[in-house]
Amino acid sequence: MEVQMRRRGRRYRFGPLLCLFSLSLRSVSGVWPFPQSFSSSPERFSLQPDAFSFTYGPESAAGTGTGAGCSVLDEAFVRYFRLIFPDYFHKQRPSLRPAPDSSFTLVVSVDQDECDGYPTQDSSERYNLSVTVGGGALNAESVWGALRGLESFSQLVYQDHSGTYYINKTVIEDFPRFPFRGILLDTSRHYLPLHAILQTLDGMAYSKFNVFHWHIVDDPSFPYQSRTFPDLSSKGAYHPFTHIYTQTDVRKVIAHARLRGIRVLPEFDSPGHTSSWGKGQPDLLTPCYSGSSPNGRFGPVNPSLSSTFQFMSTLFKEVSLVFPDSFIHLGGDEVDFTCWKSNPDVVAFMKKMGFGTDFTKLEAFYMESIVNITTALNRTAIVWQDVFDYHEKRGLLSVVEVWRSSCYLCKMRRATRAGLRVILAAPWYLDLPGPTHHWTPFYNVRPLNFKGQSEWRAVSNTCLITHIIT
Amino acid sequence: MEVQMRRRGRRYRFGPLLCLFSLSLRSVSGVWPFPQSFSSSPERFSLQPDAFSFTYGPESAAGTGTGAGCSVLDEAFVRYFRLIFPDYFHKQRPSLRPAPDSSFTLVVSVDQDECDGYPTQDSSERYNLSVTVGGGALNAESVWGALRGLESFSQLVYQDHSGTYYINKTVIEDFPRFPFRGILLDTSRHYLPLHAILQTLDGMAYSKFNVFHWHIVDDPSFPYQSRTFPDLSSKGAYHPFTHIYTQTDVRKVIAHARLRGIRVLPEFDSPGHTSSWGKGQPDLLTPCYSGSSPNGRFGPVNPSLSSTFQFMSTLFKEVSLVFPDSFIHLGGDEVDFTCWKSNPDVVAFMKKMGFGTDFTKLEAFYMESIVNITTALNRTAIVWQDVFDYHEKRGLLSVVEVWRSSCYLCKMRRATRAGLRVILAAPWYLDLPGPTHHWTPFYNVRPLNFKGQSEWRAVSNTCLITHIIT
Repeated sequence: MEVQMRRRGRRYRFGPLLCLFSLSLRSVSGVWPFPQSFSSSPERFSLQPDAFSFTYGPESAAGTGTGAGCSVLDEAFVRYFRLIFPDYFHKQRPSLRPAPDSSFTLVVSVDQDECDGYPTQDSSERYNLSVTVGGGALNAESVWGALRGLESFSQLVYQDHSGTYYINKTVIEDFPRFPFRGILLDTSRHYLPLHAILQTLDGMAYSKFNVFHWHIVDDPSFPYQSRTFPDLSSKGAYHPFTHIYTQTDVRKVIAHARLRGIRVLPEFDSPGHTSSWGKGQPDLLTPCYSGSSPNGRFGPVNPSLSSTFQFMSTLFKEVSLVFPDSFIHLGGDEVDFTCWKSNPDVVAFMKKMGFGTDFTKLEAFYMESIVNITTALNRTAIVWQDVFDYHEKRGLLSVVEVWRSSCYLCKMRRATRAGLRVILAAPWYLDLPGPTHHWTPFYNVRPLNFKGQSEWRAVSNTCLITHIIT
Repeated sequence: MEVQMRRRGRRYRFGPLLCLFSLSLRSVSGVWPFPQSFSSSPERFSLQPDAFSFTYGPESAAGTGTGAGCSVLDEAFVRYFRLIFPDYFHKQRPSLRPAPDSSFTLVVSVDQDECDGYPTQDSSERYNLSVTVGGGALNAESVWGALRGLESFSQLVYQDHSGTYYINKTVIEDFPRFPFRGILLDTSRHYLPLHAILQTLDGMAYSKFNVFHWHIVDDPSFPYQSRTFPDLSSKGAYHPFTHIYTQTDVRKVIAHARLRGIRVLPEFDSPGHTSSWGKGQPDLLTPCYSGSSPNGRFGPVNPSLSSTFQFMSTLFKEVSLVFPDSFIHLGGDEVDFTCWKSNPDVVAFMKKMGFGTDFTKLEAFYMESIVNITTALNRTAIVWQDVFDYHEKRGLLSVVEVWRSSCYLCKMRRATRAGLRVILAAPWYLDLPGPTHHWTPFYNVRPLNFKGQSEWRAVSNTCLITHIIT
């Protein structure tokens, strides 16, 4: 219990941001989420900060001996030392050297040298950890797995009432049930300062989340400062200088996430949810008509103009250069057809394309074009479930994110049957009054509890937040 | 006066770190250091944060219109908006839009597009700034000059007692007298946390300093975490995990400095001042002898072993990859010959090399070798004045830093006569009790007040700090 409390007080400052769920409820232990296999003994060993060390195993691909050279792990050793011994610098310490037999070394070995790369959908996060007298061994296939093991190791350490650090004899074998464990932050409705995003990434690492789904723009504001289209933020952000993410900010987020084994998945949602885009990009949005003349309002992105796709192509080219992850989220949710229906140019385009009066065909045409643009940029597109619902050529789709709460398992079943990969967000909206105040439903979710689930290729889950009050 | 006080309270939190000198004493004004040409009028214009903007000039090489795309200036606009209007986010603001005629735009134009590069010794920092009703124009040859102009502009803005922001009609033409205006931080005697270094860089930018001379290692500790020789920090730092600068830390320092037009000049001082190096690199330091046997102590780097130069070559190769600046500081000061004299291998080497008993020749041989290593890496070496004093082949030397207080102008004269470039540090030691408590001597320095100064090629000055209490 001491462990739990210490860690709560120290790390879980962003409790509301964290979707802390374990997919099976077991007995309380110091490691969270509960590992696949966990055994510990009452036998415990004291840890002395001055006699504690991380080191690379002799066979490790990432480094050898006391050696460094693996940026991901070098940085992690620094970070976890401070997390494991939080009061090390605040306490009066005796100047005596610790006794030789008090030394404790955690030997970290990884099979693959991915030290300078980014975590991917296919990265192994598997690790084995054993702790015994005088030291521990942490073995992983990749540095990302080693990070998860370091997190678990740090959670095993606790202090007694006199402040002495202890760790119990322990053996852990662990790997994640799902390869995609995300947190979505919406930085359009509420601008989040950079430090809040970085702290969220810290919090994610403590619970082994591995995807930061950055819903970076939306109707209310466009805080992403584009190099090619700077007016998008200078006119579409809440403020052109104070409420934006500069290229340096974005780089900082990606670098901070990488060192914690977290992918940054950018979402540029269109054709709906784009009001703010229109302020800095003329002719992008559809002018709405009242009768035969424009009424001054604007609707979704205008799919009847070739300039729209030229713009999107240039924007996504930049995005693919800025964000290294091979996935990109294209949105596609909640498109209101009213404005499209009112606009004579859009109606004429519908006729020309043979869509009749079925605006879902226009929407499908638009999304198909955008998916093609990002596919050409070597990116796998993710779309909200709406696109799956109306899209005829489902072969083009790859990953669908289920967000509507009504019978989300039905949707999971249909999408996986269609051979798609699915991200589940529906039951984990932290901003909804109910679930926010009662955590039980979050834990009771059974993402694979639908018929024919054996057909799924890779079902993943995310935890979606649409409103963060800053 | 309001400007001065506001800025002191807000920005000069690191007063003791800043060597605020003007080379000629003039009347008080809002801009610091005092520009080469400055004229202002009592006519003043109010600035409304909501109606204020930075923009790129139409002819600017760095961007156009409201456009972005120049990382150095995009980031500077964000930073200076917050510095100019510090209470913008804390005050209750009326929701009304500002009146149209209250808008103020500073149009920034630069001739050269160096947005993604680093400032260099040859970078122009010249700028012209004019402020009139409704707007201002800032013109510079490079983005680095534009940064200096933005700093000056920000210093012109002040608030009256009701909180309204004002700027007076002003014309400034400015360029620095010396191209090298440095601050030295010693992070070996006292480890400085990363944030303290970053804040020092902020403080430097406020006074237009442009070189961060990072005296990163020395006798007491080796906090630089080398990729190729990780034991240097894991055994030579005050603490292997908490008192080091990781590669990520170093990158952060360089990036933070770049965005402020500050070069990062690393110093790896040898052959003296290297006690901490020996802990992680066996056989690097000279074993000292008492009589015919080693006494367990170590002296300077051992210049009699070829392994020494192999090590130095590998280390400096890494350093040249990590630090982009074309200059590197090799130290070379205060070498104590006692240990060399006691060591039979060194003595034998002296004999073999024909140095007789003149150990300055051995020191010169060592420094010459190190200079050659860094020259091959396309780096210009800086050495402390000691090397100039004993070095016979002065043609190898390029830049000398004068640090000894005794007749430093004599030394300036001799070095410039020898055709060398000189950095002056001697009169600006902030840690010395006298000058620290009395600022006048700092301002009274006349760096060029020596005979034959017309012979100098490029005399530069720095401001040296050897002890920072953290």
